[in-house]
Amino acid sequence: MAKLRAKYDVIVIGSGPSAVSTALQCAEHGLQVLCVDNLLAPETNKLSNGIFAHSPTLEINTLLSSANLFCELKYHGSSHGITFSNLSLNLPQLIDRKNKIFLQFDKDLFKFFNDANVDFYNANAKLLSSNSIEFLFSYSEPAKIIHSDHIVLATESIPFAIGCAPVDHQHIFDSSCAFSIQEIPQRIAILGAGVIGLEIAGIWNRLGSKVILLDAQESFLSLVDNQLSREAYTIFSEQGLELKLGTRVVSTKIVNKKVIIEYEDIDGLNTLRVDKLIVASGRKPNSQLIASPSANLLIDQNNFVYVNENCRTNLPNVYAIGDLTMLGPMLPQKGIAEGVFVADRIAGIRSASINYETIPNVIYTEPQIAWVGQTEQTLKSKGDLIEIRTSNLNCHFSNKSPNYSNGIVKIISCPKSDVIKGIHIIAKNASDLIAEAVLAMEFSSTTEDLARTSHSHPSLSEAIRHASKSPKKLPLNSD
Amino acid sequence: MAKLRAKYDVIVIGSGPSAVSTALQCAEHGLQVLCVDNLLAPETNKLSNGIFAHSPTLEINTLLSSANLFCELKYHGSSHGITFSNLSLNLPQLIDRKNKIFLQFDKDLFKFFNDANVDFYNANAKLLSSNSIEFLFSYSEPAKIIHSDHIVLATESIPFAIGCAPVDHQHIFDSSCAFSIQEIPQRIAILGAGVIGLEIAGIWNRLGSKVILLDAQESFLSLVDNQLSREAYTIFSEQGLELKLGTRVVSTKIVNKKVIIEYEDIDGLNTLRVDKLIVASGRKPNSQLIASPSANLLIDQNNFVYVNENCRTNLPNVYAIGDLTMLGPMLPQKGIAEGVFVADRIAGIRSASINYETIPNVIYTEPQIAWVGQTEQTLKSKGDLIEIRTSNLNCHFSNKSPNYSNGIVKIISCPKSDVIKGIHIIAKNASDLIAEAVLAMEFSSTTEDLARTSHSHPSLSEAIRHASKSPKKLPLNSD
Repeated sequence: MAKLRAKYDVIVIGSGPSAVSTALQCAEHGLQVLCVDNLLAPETNKLSNGIFAHSPTLEINTLLSSANLFCELKYHGSSHGITFSNLSLNLPQLIDRKNKIFLQFDKDLFKFFNDANVDFYNANAKLLSSNSIEFLFSYSEPAKIIHSDHIVLATESIPFAIGCAPVDHQHIFDSSCAFSIQEIPQRIAILGAGVIGLEIAGIWNRLGSKVILLDAQESFLSLVDNQLSREAYTIFSEQGLELKLGTRVVSTKIVNKKVIIEYEDIDGLNTLRVDKLIVASGRKPNSQLIASPSANLLIDQNNFVYVNENCRTNLPNVYAIGDLTMLGPMLPQKGIAEGVFVADRIAGIRSASINYETIPNVIYTEPQIAWVGQTEQTLKSKGDLIEIRTSNLNCHFSNKSPNYSNGIVKIISCPKSDVIKGIHIIAKNASDLIAEAVLAMEFSSTTEDLARTSHSHPSLSEAIRHASKSPKKLPLNSD
Repeated sequence: MAKLRAKYDVIVIGSGPSAVSTALQCAEHGLQVLCVDNLLAPETNKLSNGIFAHSPTLEINTLLSSANLFCELKYHGSSHGITFSNLSLNLPQLIDRKNKIFLQFDKDLFKFFNDANVDFYNANAKLLSSNSIEFLFSYSEPAKIIHSDHIVLATESIPFAIGCAPVDHQHIFDSSCAFSIQEIPQRIAILGAGVIGLEIAGIWNRLGSKVILLDAQESFLSLVDNQLSREAYTIFSEQGLELKLGTRVVSTKIVNKKVIIEYEDIDGLNTLRVDKLIVASGRKPNSQLIASPSANLLIDQNNFVYVNENCRTNLPNVYAIGDLTMLGPMLPQKGIAEGVFVADRIAGIRSASINYETIPNVIYTEPQIAWVGQTEQTLKSKGDLIEIRTSNLNCHFSNKSPNYSNGIVKIISCPKSDVIKGIHIIAKNASDLIAEAVLAMEFSSTTEDLARTSHSHPSLSEAIRHASKSPKKLPLNSD
């Protein structure tokens, strides 16, 4: 570990995907970089292997792969000819596997940083001015002031807290500690049936819990193209999730180690009794401790750091990226793109602005939901003329992959030019399939371009070709 | 089932991916189509559910998903926290699952044909002239002559036979019946370490057999980019496959229910004793019975049907596509593309010729190998200047997916224009990842285009972005 310098070219505060992307890209440009995040409490700091703020979806993905294996075995093992007895699940061991994988992630990232000559510390860092930070490595040492020509704020987001459901880490948890529960609960309620709530729900459901999701919104996954959110509602309901929409939680209390949730819906006041409650009602920018008041960093009332279209804050040479800002969606790939963009600008390379329209959105459920571009409802509300082509994954010969996945591919295009305006996918590996869709949109591809592009047979990617060849239909007005 | 007509717009002989693609595309153009294949012996014909000649890779995929599940459980189950006792594998049940899936594939395809008004029969069909076929549905009925304005030959390919290893379906099998073996053999030899041999080997290896592959070639997977074939050699060797290259089989005999294989290598004559032998020494066009001699269809000495660059045979209005011809590689996606192309031409639509350079190649091993465009060795032999960028799947932070896959992404581009000349992938789901690479090549994308395209985090598709951002290197001359 290199000695902390008094001055750097770039200081990056944070250690999530946006911060890592910025630090490595800056290092590639030959800049001297310090990356600092306060994930370990100062007193317990272990410099030998840095701890990074991985994207929450990494945890979801790791646990889901175990949960899926367990489910496939439990429900389909005998059809595969796999026989066994006394099948059971050891939750601490499953969690331990995830922890070991994350330890390895950390070690590897730390090595990448070392190889790239990026200094990395787990320490408290706070913006003091447009060219300095306060650095508190250990409470036994005085804080240091470190200077830098450029500072990039990239501390991402933290879960929203809800007043009537205070997290106690015994009965009530938030999304960041949803898997610190020590044994598989019989009944879990999740507050919020959005992206994070659904991702968490899918895992507990597969591990054997009865999962009930409560959401204040009447409509399910309203950000998603409505046709896909309807399809997803059906799929998740069939998987056993209980989705209670249009419900407002009024109070929670702990009685005899159970959580009693009082909620209002169209029928009035109801009560729900569960073993554990997970609050997954969204995330907010992790900006509360990012700057000393004297720095005069502009932060709005929702904790978003103000930036212009080039990720610059109100302070010269100070940038903010990722979940901290209102530019684009709260997605790791957005922060990664901004990290590269900002690093390039710091190095004097004026690349084209980020096209937020072509950043893919992914929900890491099983099957996954991914999309790029615009939804049918958005385009219709703008009065755009559109054509729609869809393919059901389980109803075309080329989609008849033995690695069966239910789902849908929907392509929306302009009737005149045939240029694609949005691609929406539900499929087992939609997070990979969307890559082709993103590139198609980057190149202003038409549906005919996709139809005339060869796709491996068999593969799930054939569903994109099939959708692009499907008969077009005009949207229904009722939709 | 519709009554057989005396005359059609289009007759398609075959029922594999090429034939299905042709028939459905012709039907879409409003043409009256007969599709006929002799997969069931005439006397046992069951019209109620047609039998189709699915791509061999479909069988591989189906069986591999079971074999992978078994292996993941056996070797990694406890790390996932999944505990069980008395784990064992029931081979007939595993095969039965595959058969059921295929029965469903057949039923679904038959329904697509019905919905599209394509007449489909399992019957013997033979080209009589440029506008007629002989149709023998049952030996108890006389053969019929059916006329058609256009005829498309699409009977794909069949395994090569080898004189010194005659298939007896008891000890020696070919690739088409590699999974009709009734119990898991202790030791299997496979003749041919090419695409099909490796696909079959991976499954038996995972089911518990010791697998030895013999190949006359000195170099491993010589069609594949050499850097990838070296990587694949290491991966497959570590998985337990024994690869004996540069070996020529001299004789085989059955002694005490074992197969004794005599082979020559650099050390001279050797003997190998195994329980079963699978001959996987490639495939040849299935053209032997396709035409009556009086039709005068031009077929070369290697059984390839002669075609021009538009898939036209020497007979007017008679086309041949898929594995039957020497155009492009023997891959289902090639036949599928040609099926659409020929159907369009028959319907009077003159679309652009097929770009065989942008058809993806896939080997359905685990991990999969997929590529599009040209290899380093081909480009170098042409004297082209090239730049190379690679990314190892297990050594970059964004590749640290918990759904771990070892492998590599290699991008070859032109140093002047940065335009991509080939993308080569080893990864768990390379058959899906290659879709983005194919589209990139269709659009003459540069590596910078890929580097500036957002990819979902986490996803294996990030490896493509990472490769495109990696430092370029010039190829070594020794390579």
